Amino acid sequence: MNNTENKVSLEILASLCKRRGFIYPSSELYGGLNGFWDYGPLGCELKRNLKEAWWHSTVHKREDVVGLDATIIMHPAIWKASGHVDGFVDPMVDCKVCKKRFRADQLCEEQGKTLQKDNGSLRLPEGMVCPSCGAKDWTEPRLFNLMFKSFVGPVEDDSSLVYLRPETAQAIFAQFKNILDTSRQSVPFGIAQMGKSFRNEITPRNFTFRSREFEQMELEYFIRPDEAIRLLCGRVAAAPTQMRTDVEPQPDWGWECWHKYWVAQRMNWYYSIGLPPSTLVEYWQPPHELAHYARACVDIQFAFPFGIQELEGIAARSDFDLSRHQSFSGKSLEVFDEPLKLAARKLSDSERAAFTDSIVREWEARNRSAEEARAFCTKLFEGRYIPHVIEPSAGADRLALALLSQAYCEEWVPTSKEGGSPQPAIQGRPPPQGYELRTLLRFSPRIAPIKIGVFPLLKNKPDLVAKGRSVFQMLRKRWHCFWDETGAIGRRYRRQDEAGTPFGVTIDFETLSNDTVTLRNRDSMKQVRIAISRLVEELERRMDLPQLPPDEA
Amino acid sequence: MNNTENKVSLEILASLCKRRGFIYPSSELYGGLNGFWDYGPLGCELKRNLKEAWWHSTVHKREDVVGLDATIIMHPAIWKASGHVDGFVDPMVDCKVCKKRFRADQLCEEQGKTLQKDNGSLRLPEGMVCPSCGAKDWTEPRLFNLMFKSFVGPVEDDSSLVYLRPETAQAIFAQFKNILDTSRQSVPFGIAQMGKSFRNEITPRNFTFRSREFEQMELEYFIRPDEAIRLLCGRVAAAPTQMRTDVEPQPDWGWECWHKYWVAQRMNWYYSIGLPPSTLVEYWQPPHELAHYARACVDIQFAFPFGIQELEGIAARSDFDLSRHQSFSGKSLEVFDEPLKLAARKLSDSERAAFTDSIVREWEARNRSAEEARAFCTKLFEGRYIPHVIEPSAGADRLALALLSQAYCEEWVPTSKEGGSPQPAIQGRPPPQGYELRTLLRFSPRIAPIKIGVFPLLKNKPDLVAKGRSVFQMLRKRWHCFWDETGAIGRRYRRQDEAGTPFGVTIDFETLSNDTVTLRNRDSMKQVRIAISRLVEELERRMDLPQLPPDEA
Repeated sequence: MNNTENKVSLEILASLCKRRGFIYPSSELYGGLNGFWDYGPLGCELKRNLKEAWWHSTVHKREDVVGLDATIIMHPAIWKASGHVDGFVDPMVDCKVCKKRFRADQLCEEQGKTLQKDNGSLRLPEGMVCPSCGAKDWTEPRLFNLMFKSFVGPVEDDSSLVYLRPETAQAIFAQFKNILDTSRQSVPFGIAQMGKSFRNEITPRNFTFRSREFEQMELEYFIRPDEAIRLLCGRVAAAPTQMRTDVEPQPDWGWECWHKYWVAQRMNWYYSIGLPPSTLVEYWQPPHELAHYARACVDIQFAFPFGIQELEGIAARSDFDLSRHQSFSGKSLEVFDEPLKLAARKLSDSERAAFTDSIVREWEARNRSAEEARAFCTKLFEGRYIPHVIEPSAGADRLALALLSQAYCEEWVPTSKEGGSPQPAIQGRPPPQGYELRTLLRFSPRIAPIKIGVFPLLKNKPDLVAKGRSVFQMLRKRWHCFWDETGAIGRRYRRQDEAGTPFGVTIDFETLSNDTVTLRNRDSMKQVRIAISRLVEELERRMDLPQLPPDEA
Repeated sequence: MNNTENKVSLEILASLCKRRGFIYPSSELYGGLNGFWDYGPLGCELKRNLKEAWWHSTVHKREDVVGLDATIIMHPAIWKASGHVDGFVDPMVDCKVCKKRFRADQLCEEQGKTLQKDNGSLRLPEGMVCPSCGAKDWTEPRLFNLMFKSFVGPVEDDSSLVYLRPETAQAIFAQFKNILDTSRQSVPFGIAQMGKSFRNEITPRNFTFRSREFEQMELEYFIRPDEAIRLLCGRVAAAPTQMRTDVEPQPDWGWECWHKYWVAQRMNWYYSIGLPPSTLVEYWQPPHELAHYARACVDIQFAFPFGIQELEGIAARSDFDLSRHQSFSGKSLEVFDEPLKLAARKLSDSERAAFTDSIVREWEARNRSAEEARAFCTKLFEGRYIPHVIEPSAGADRLALALLSQAYCEEWVPTSKEGGSPQPAIQGRPPPQGYELRTLLRFSPRIAPIKIGVFPLLKNKPDLVAKGRSVFQMLRKRWHCFWDETGAIGRRYRRQDEAGTPFGVTIDFETLSNDTVTLRNRDSMKQVRIAISRLVEELERRMDLPQLPPDEA
């Protein structure tokens, strides 16, 4: 696990992002808008690549997951059912002196204290200091709903009130039945969605980490309830301590196996795009932190420059969401499971009764009534149930920030070919004699905005340029490439290093005589000569290698 | 040009879209939300493919266009500068009897009348009938701003009021300077953006064509003012009547060449994804329809089931947008053009004066003052100007609808192999003896949601299934494929026909003996035997062929 001390500071990162066109403040021309960020030419390619990698691994590589692209504005009843209208709130307080507003829980945490709860109402602890003006005079904490509101149609009243979605997940539950009916999938299967969500954060902060408009990548993976597995297979498989990434899902898996399976899959995916396990923390939420309906939740965390924070949450949410939507919409969201019905039919009456009794005992131990358990079993014997769900939910913007922060690197490199080998730069110190500073982004080739820089050695030699163009045209059919003929070749390499371009191809005078070029590796700066005819094949090989972090390479 | 009579009806199309998981009403579980639509498993792949094709052709295939991914919520001053706060309005009227609300201009048009304007105020013509209740008792028409409003932060007042963007284009203008400074581009160059936009339509209609939340694909291509071209090249090239698609941009092109160039490029792009020129109309807006700042505007139109309507607008917008943002933000949005400055330096004082005089005369003829023209020329001689812009602006949702509508086809096909050849179905009539109805979507392979269906002839022969799986695994590395082993092979073909899957690969008993499979073409239903070793190469060849419409194939 990298600690945060060796990390690039957020200021340096934000400055690089602005300077190189990764991320700009939204509406900067008009003074900006707090909590909103735009992705520039390099940034939008980075984000496209990571979203594409997620979609490929989550949807296209699998046969049991399909996609959805739903609207941001949905029927407000969805947010009533999901609990967001009543419960998606943050406590806020105002400083009475300087009128600044803060999130009460964050304010307490920053000052080493805890927000107090008395009979359901909130209270700031004694002695809280305003970070802005130093006063200690506060309003009472009030709850504030984080959903952005709007109105559909020309009349602005309760009947036209809508919300911008605060998460993409609920659309998946709302369209669950339509997709089940039209996609030829059956449980277990998943529905994936990427898209913008909006949260009216009281205090957006940490660059793009906590912003008001952001992009999510969410999967809802629907599984049979454990009771159905027991009916089908006679038992539920015990979950291993750690699930291997290459394991195939099994019919006797209950929620615990599926949950661990998705944790392993997701960790492996981060590895495949440049965040190896050593850079991540698997944080298993202790039982008292879990939402009441959740069986388990793992946060995948990353050491950001401002601390260790969540990249993704993987929750086992039971049948909570679909049950709520069934109850609020009055429409059945049960599935019919033919194999389950056939399995139940094979049982004798007494076997069925024994099965029901054991379920009743289990449910009673979890404080659910015997009637509920019996009704559930009756449905189960008919092959009917509400699926349970595992929810891996990731944020595209915080992932982009993690990738930028992980990739950022400063080195001291020799100014001449005869110089020594590169050294890690020490921040705040100038490079030693004969060395210069090099800034680079060690992106994995899979997510790098530009894959290959193509450089004719000299701009004013038509032969070199023409040959270079033909190599460029060949490579860009396959990859996003950048042509650069301006300036000294060393400066052109540096520019691409800073953009995170993993490979450089240089066309020089030797190219004209023997059809070879040099292929440069961004990280090692080593160059090899290679025949143009072998270039595509060699680049294909190198593009597929997962990128190890500097300390493991 | 196809006329609308041979087109599939909107009802049949919407029903297929729902049944096969292309498009569902948003929030259908809760009764839906008028003007909002969700894309299901097949629909979201279709939309991904067309957006990817646009991005590839607009950004990656070019060296002079870069991308942007800006926020939906931006600083409200942007919409003041763009004119949307004051001018983005539709007239609405209410029926006083049934209380239904209508867009006044659409209502008049539908009843063959025209909305009247008296001294700037609007008036319904006499005798307008309410389509809902038949009454003729109307409120006065009022103007309604189409931007969705929201509030940032917990206080809802004028200082926190924001809008959901009604178009993606303005973000490009707002970030123009940041991108120019960080992307190593210089005029002429373009900035492209795809993303959601929102318009609070009074009467959303025609399925997904006019919806309240939709996705745009917009390019702002920045060019030198014609005066700068004349200074640089001595003249501005005359624009041909029709620009060829394979022409390379030239240094002496003025706005008219660039505008026609983009019309040709965009028409060619529609061809490449399955809408050939014969299915489109190039509508050149007559001068009295143009916005005051626009030099020219071409609508690319398509014959939808409900009439001929716009797919894309390509406008020459002069320097209107950047000038407005410069004036509203108080920050310079001029570019510095080194070659232009050098060209101006070569002129003698009298040549410069003569140049200025000619520009003054031209501007005066366009009702702009001599002072303005002189100030402009002074800047021009220093290499400074505000770029002009060509704006190809397309809608992803209406394009998806056009592609679905163009692809939809019903045929009568023989029920046995010995039967005759397929015939176009006649709507409302049953197929003749020995024939059955086949519904198919003739998508171009480039945008088809699934590229290849892979079918083992029989599900219960492990050899066939194992061989089939190995072919499937090989193909899916390269394309999005669908494995289907359930049901009669004919039914499986039909299912993929209806999903628009262009190719089918069937693994049969002959495969086991000689490693060949059959490759089926969706449109002709013809099958050829092909060696598995040649399959990828042959499919690669077929994927790249542009699709001709039935009447030109």
